[in-house]
Amino acid sequence: MADKKIIGVDLGGTTAKFAIMTPEGEIQQRWSIDTNILDDGKHIVPDIIESINEHLDLYNMTPGDFIGIGMGSPGSVDIDKGTVTGAFNLNWKTTQPVKADIEKGTGITFTIDNDANVAALGEQWQGAGDNNKDVTFVTLGTGVGGGIVADGNLLHGVAGSAGELGHVTVDPNGYMCTCGKRGCLETVASATGVVRVARDMAEEFAGDSKLKQILDDGDEISSKIVFDCAKDGDKLALMIVDRVSYFLGLALANVGNMLNPSFIVIGGGVSAAGDFLLTRVDKYFKQFTFPNVRKTTELRLATLGNTAGVIGAASLAIK
Amino acid sequence: MADKKIIGVDLGGTTAKFAIMTPEGEIQQRWSIDTNILDDGKHIVPDIIESINEHLDLYNMTPGDFIGIGMGSPGSVDIDKGTVTGAFNLNWKTTQPVKADIEKGTGITFTIDNDANVAALGEQWQGAGDNNKDVTFVTLGTGVGGGIVADGNLLHGVAGSAGELGHVTVDPNGYMCTCGKRGCLETVASATGVVRVARDMAEEFAGDSKLKQILDDGDEISSKIVFDCAKDGDKLALMIVDRVSYFLGLALANVGNMLNPSFIVIGGGVSAAGDFLLTRVDKYFKQFTFPNVRKTTELRLATLGNTAGVIGAASLAIK
Repeated sequence: MADKKIIGVDLGGTTAKFAIMTPEGEIQQRWSIDTNILDDGKHIVPDIIESINEHLDLYNMTPGDFIGIGMGSPGSVDIDKGTVTGAFNLNWKTTQPVKADIEKGTGITFTIDNDANVAALGEQWQGAGDNNKDVTFVTLGTGVGGGIVADGNLLHGVAGSAGELGHVTVDPNGYMCTCGKRGCLETVASATGVVRVARDMAEEFAGDSKLKQILDDGDEISSKIVFDCAKDGDKLALMIVDRVSYFLGLALANVGNMLNPSFIVIGGGVSAAGDFLLTRVDKYFKQFTFPNVRKTTELRLATLGNTAGVIGAASLAIK
Repeated sequence: MADKKIIGVDLGGTTAKFAIMTPEGEIQQRWSIDTNILDDGKHIVPDIIESINEHLDLYNMTPGDFIGIGMGSPGSVDIDKGTVTGAFNLNWKTTQPVKADIEKGTGITFTIDNDANVAALGEQWQGAGDNNKDVTFVTLGTGVGGGIVADGNLLHGVAGSAGELGHVTVDPNGYMCTCGKRGCLETVASATGVVRVARDMAEEFAGDSKLKQILDDGDEISSKIVFDCAKDGDKLALMIVDRVSYFLGLALANVGNMLNPSFIVIGGGVSAAGDFLLTRVDKYFKQFTFPNVRKTTELRLATLGNTAGVIGAASLAIK
């Protein structure tokens, strides 16, 4: 019992990542398989079961060697029933009995949560969160997601929407979001949001700017191009980064004002801008937090990259 | 053991309220004493001890009949050490060893938390929260305070500031708050905040208004007068209530977007305006929440009034 292991599965639209870990957080084995979304995604769960069983054989391990399997999934996850609904990048349109199938197929206890929540658990446990019991995670990718660990518990809320930091209202008269309301953090701080802010600010900008030139030439831009231009001192790009940082600083300050976590960890593709982004967000974070939070809640960059999910998923098995 | 009781103490600057309750939430006895803040508040704890012991004698009860005592206190509470610092309305300037003294004086286990947190626990357990495990409480009084119960746990954060909803930034360019930053919810939604908004909006207002007349006459106004005028159809007062409701709706919407509680419970003096306030705040709450939160998180008025504190305090004994 003392040296039983845990298995993490991070299911995404292109790959499923796996890890065998100790309950102390040491990764012992890692592998991944392609996600086959054909035929309404009906191969996904069987492929996961087969891959786990194959690897157990390979390492001469049996179900009895494991405390459990934890998994992070896109879509709407029912953590009690262990089902997933509406995961469109998996072609899962109907409710999938993931827990029932995987427990039957592997003989190992199974726990599931959504992908942003398991990434939050990963960063909280083994990443920038340093295993503190109050850590909030925000991920700036195609969209903006997040997860909240408070008093040691991953929060879900009454209907699973706790930690949805992408839909915090930061600009009541701002851009319309895909969710149907205005001014969501996601509309300005996701990868696509940064580009949207860039296009709008470029229209108003009159001075000399390489970024404006790229846009005027009709070339596609990305949030990476915006940050790269800003790092090169491009005036327009610096203004864009400042505006994005303002809204992100405001949203995270209010996370701090409400929850006073040890750390608010920033991950996802946009956070690849690193300290250049962090210091600018931190300026507004400090402006919008009250003294006790300003002194005790710290912004940090995520450290686990795309392994946060599989590590956090594994930790579900020991929650 | 099965029928052991709990004691709640709600310590305030003018009175200390007491209750003997069952662990199921039934109040069996209630009483209160005046808070004697003379001599740097050094009589307060001895008076509480004496009052508890007297009432135990009166009801023929012994320390063995109790699971514990829970107390809510103003000031900065160290819940682990059981001490209170800087409670200025008690004249407690130095650190008070409340837990040590009360346990020694009564022979009963003692737990303490701050007054806004115990009021939140009270409303969550026996009030508008209907004992749901995700309930946020906001109190609109002289200041604005709050407390968050998430996944069944009262949140404290790393330095005790979780639930300080009064300092959520709702208007980045708004009024300066006593905390030193601008645009805190407290600057517009506390009793004094409502009056501040009223004075400023009255200056700009040109039309016919009884409220403006009162202000022009140099008479003092209160948040109650503002709401009473609004209920009578006073145009200026309605505009003031709308602005206050906008900021409160925005702040509570972001509580919803982050935490997705079952209920956000509104208490404190300003909430005496009742459904008149609630429906106006709810309009903005719905505008600023995303669909899943809009459908599942509900605003409610507090139901326990000023007994929330003593009930929530008692519940600390069984946490």
